Amino acid sequence: MDKILRINMGAEGGPAVTEEPWGKYEGLGGRALTSAIVSGEVPPLCHPLGEDNKLIIAPGLLSGTAAAMSGRISVGCKSPLTGTIKESNSGGQPSQVLARLGYGAIVLEGKPKDDNLYKIFINKDGVTISSDNSLRMLGNYDLVDKMKEEYGDKICCISIGPAGEMKMAAASVAFTDMEMRPTRHAGRGGVGAVMGSKGVKVIVLDDTGMKMRPPKDPEKFREANKEFVSGLKKHPVTGEALPAYGTNVLTNVINEAGAYPTKNFMWGRFDNCSAISGETEAETETARGGSATHGCHRGCVIQCSGIYMNKDGHYLTKQPEYETVWAHGGNCGIDDLDAIAMLDRLDDDYGLDTIEMGATVAVAMEAGLAAFGDADAAINLVHEVGKGTPLGRILGNGAAVTGKVFGVERVPVVKGQAMPAYDPRGIQGIGVTYATSTMGADHTAGYAVATNILKVGGYVDPLKPEGQIELSRNLQIATAAVDSTGMCLFIAFAVLDQPETFQALIDMINAFYGLSMTADDVAELGKKVLKMERDFNTRAGFTAIHDRLPDYFMKESLPPHNVTFQVKDEELDQLYNW
Amino acid sequence: MDKILRINMGAEGGPAVTEEPWGKYEGLGGRALTSAIVSGEVPPLCHPLGEDNKLIIAPGLLSGTAAAMSGRISVGCKSPLTGTIKESNSGGQPSQVLARLGYGAIVLEGKPKDDNLYKIFINKDGVTISSDNSLRMLGNYDLVDKMKEEYGDKICCISIGPAGEMKMAAASVAFTDMEMRPTRHAGRGGVGAVMGSKGVKVIVLDDTGMKMRPPKDPEKFREANKEFVSGLKKHPVTGEALPAYGTNVLTNVINEAGAYPTKNFMWGRFDNCSAISGETEAETETARGGSATHGCHRGCVIQCSGIYMNKDGHYLTKQPEYETVWAHGGNCGIDDLDAIAMLDRLDDDYGLDTIEMGATVAVAMEAGLAAFGDADAAINLVHEVGKGTPLGRILGNGAAVTGKVFGVERVPVVKGQAMPAYDPRGIQGIGVTYATSTMGADHTAGYAVATNILKVGGYVDPLKPEGQIELSRNLQIATAAVDSTGMCLFIAFAVLDQPETFQALIDMINAFYGLSMTADDVAELGKKVLKMERDFNTRAGFTAIHDRLPDYFMKESLPPHNVTFQVKDEELDQLYNW
Repeated sequence: MDKILRINMGAEGGPAVTEEPWGKYEGLGGRALTSAIVSGEVPPLCHPLGEDNKLIIAPGLLSGTAAAMSGRISVGCKSPLTGTIKESNSGGQPSQVLARLGYGAIVLEGKPKDDNLYKIFINKDGVTISSDNSLRMLGNYDLVDKMKEEYGDKICCISIGPAGEMKMAAASVAFTDMEMRPTRHAGRGGVGAVMGSKGVKVIVLDDTGMKMRPPKDPEKFREANKEFVSGLKKHPVTGEALPAYGTNVLTNVINEAGAYPTKNFMWGRFDNCSAISGETEAETETARGGSATHGCHRGCVIQCSGIYMNKDGHYLTKQPEYETVWAHGGNCGIDDLDAIAMLDRLDDDYGLDTIEMGATVAVAMEAGLAAFGDADAAINLVHEVGKGTPLGRILGNGAAVTGKVFGVERVPVVKGQAMPAYDPRGIQGIGVTYATSTMGADHTAGYAVATNILKVGGYVDPLKPEGQIELSRNLQIATAAVDSTGMCLFIAFAVLDQPETFQALIDMINAFYGLSMTADDVAELGKKVLKMERDFNTRAGFTAIHDRLPDYFMKESLPPHNVTFQVKDEELDQLYNW
Repeated sequence: MDKILRINMGAEGGPAVTEEPWGKYEGLGGRALTSAIVSGEVPPLCHPLGEDNKLIIAPGLLSGTAAAMSGRISVGCKSPLTGTIKESNSGGQPSQVLARLGYGAIVLEGKPKDDNLYKIFINKDGVTISSDNSLRMLGNYDLVDKMKEEYGDKICCISIGPAGEMKMAAASVAFTDMEMRPTRHAGRGGVGAVMGSKGVKVIVLDDTGMKMRPPKDPEKFREANKEFVSGLKKHPVTGEALPAYGTNVLTNVINEAGAYPTKNFMWGRFDNCSAISGETEAETETARGGSATHGCHRGCVIQCSGIYMNKDGHYLTKQPEYETVWAHGGNCGIDDLDAIAMLDRLDDDYGLDTIEMGATVAVAMEAGLAAFGDADAAINLVHEVGKGTPLGRILGNGAAVTGKVFGVERVPVVKGQAMPAYDPRGIQGIGVTYATSTMGADHTAGYAVATNILKVGGYVDPLKPEGQIELSRNLQIATAAVDSTGMCLFIAFAVLDQPETFQALIDMINAFYGLSMTADDVAELGKKVLKMERDFNTRAGFTAIHDRLPDYFMKESLPPHNVTFQVKDEELDQLYNW
């Protein structure tokens, strides 16, 4: 992890590889590293699909170690969806593997001089880049199968589907899971389009012959990790709810809270949500011979994922997450879990962000392209995207573009990115995060739902404006730090509630790197990351006025609580005043 | 002209009409009035197609009088294309007629509670509003024919075609000409989509029984008008070039200067431009029994327009203007004048901005949807827009959306609006106007081409950055004032070169209103208008960073002069420091 791998796809004579020491970026991993490189090296007014943008793929500080939950990876660039800086985060195997191969980041730069599609193979012996146009327009599943045939089954893959090749702003970057399926995605912000613009279809990693990264103080590290794991196991969210039902345990919870965005954010409750709840999903998975408890990467102890089989008992997709089930489900008025699982599969295969696509289909439904609740129509719309028809091109560029093209007014986006599965009127803290995040509307950037609804880390009334700024601010700072460690964000439930688990995390980092960081230092890191990101956005033309929800959230009341978004503009403008 | 007519399309129980005195807007006409109302009454963060936006249609201060050239009309709103304030300006009959009917402005407000399509009839007896769904999706030509059948042939019309009904961001508002054809358009910025969002298909005006507006000092007014007309007649541009060849006289001139944007702004010269030049166009029109010298409204003495017949000698369209011939011609590599005239006709009929559409087709060609130079393909693409297919919806939303949807990098827009017919690298003064105008890329906002190329009002070297800021600034100020008078902008050629013609214009206004304005007062008015507009844009989230050309204009050299855009960001930021 002490090297940065730069691949200039636009070099004369074909792609050129350079390795450089961690150097000025030393001590930065994951989001801290991707945002530092984007903020420091990418001209903020460049075209996101142009030669000046860079795509940075960075494991976290603890990735590749024995630390539990350390398999998250960050993908950064200037976003084609939002025009802001972007860090999109994924699980899967590549984070651990890339870290073990010794790379703190892969930086894709420049733009190919030809129209070829490239694959990049990285193992202990170095980097091989070759053009391979036989991969053109392959779905992620077929692509990974082809790579397995070619490179064996010890590999993992970072890839794009047809959506990324077509440079759609909802295109994801896929990361293979433990079963070598392309089910984990850096979904948000169109990072797949940037990979496509670099002409890179797939990066194949093989860490055969490489070892787990050794800590400076193995004993302390082992102890801290043990304490950390025990903290995760004993917390009700990470130790019980998530393993049993996955993230989709939230469907009933958020619906009950009246903040479940239904039919394009028209209502806060979905009548038939029990048909698509985590409880039903887990039951269905188990009954069909799948699994309701499963991890997305080696070293995961929460196991919030699962395996979803079709009616015939054959693998269809990984367990669709809460946001996916909501996006393609309640938000489109769809209560058919099999259809939602099929949509999840299609999104993974075409390489699309499930949140953006679900939000987009709902906007298309509001535009009259299909009826709310029509699952077949939704599936057909996503197929249009995969085929790249004109309609598919519209949808594949996300909810904001779709709304613009079809003249729809009610488009739930901030900075061009679709809101996830929590109505900001019903959970006002998450509304603050949507409005002010450097990323556009993003629930993971400061998951106020934890405190507003799950009462983790205290309690702030979700329906009132009071306390939401402070809540979102603190969470955004903490998240920016966690996203830099390679840790799964779900550790936050335990870390927020249990000081000893938070301390164990810090101890792990200190023991690994021989540091003596404190909790304050962690907060400082988070602030530093946010500051870099916000500085980039400012230079790209974003101001406080862009830190706003669409005006209808202040005008239309959300049933059943009949509440509008109450946090004032002047308060939103205080978020970054810490 | 002492009343403002407000029509609330969203009132309970159907559209409600109120008339109010000129009041706080007294002394403001045309653009000054539309921008004052938008800036003062429209929430800058509202959705352009929502109930809070307003569409203001305002004749100029001298419209409806005997003053020559006073038939221009302003259409203002928050633009669905740019998100900025918008004033889009048109010729045609309605300006004079509306002013004679006593209205300083029509303000369309609110949003219909039903899905009906409305027509508004205004005559000396007042305002009648009725729903008429038989007009749905009619082209402007058929629509106007229907209105003639219904209301007789003393009327004039303000209308939208299918593009406006579909709320496309390239939709225009059409104004009938002296022959009662819908050939004059407030094209830019999607004002037609806003009219569509208000549910208004057509406003029919009949000034039967109304008189020309009387000046306070008829004698002085008559004298000043005479001097003014004589000034226009004696200037080589307004007295010779424009009457003989229309605006398209510029094709050879701009091509010779190496600033003729060819094939989506790839080159500065178009090999076969003589086939589509003003000289060829005038010859073709005359040979086929059309006309090469014709005015767009009563009282025009420049007569820059014409009548274009097809090969069989039947009327096809009004004389396509330079920007249209360029947009659908050289910019798409098309050198077939009949095809260009057909595209002009289609744009007028569907209700589309010819500049935006030509720029969009060129971007689509760069995306590979058609080959540069393929006129049939271009015609088919515009038909797609009229039909509202998904592809048509994309194109009908302009070049920026088309570029985004198809992942094209080279998209010549500023603030989302397509650049007109002058490459900003070959004519750097117009580049300053594109970058800094409150309207997005707009040549009319500060026509530096006059001084850079035509040597009107002095000379500033078009290829060098020196002097361009001052040039553009002064022209933008003067234009904002002229756009408020109802005067055709082409008077500026004579006014800039001949102090006595400028004085005659001021004398006319003074004699009409009993004022004693000076040249300085005119400049103050222009500054006041720009300040209001910029203030609105600031509140809508626009900053100095949005006052930039796309980065490729600073990176790619334009042949034949091989020059990039040289005016520095810091200089652009000085434009509004006067």
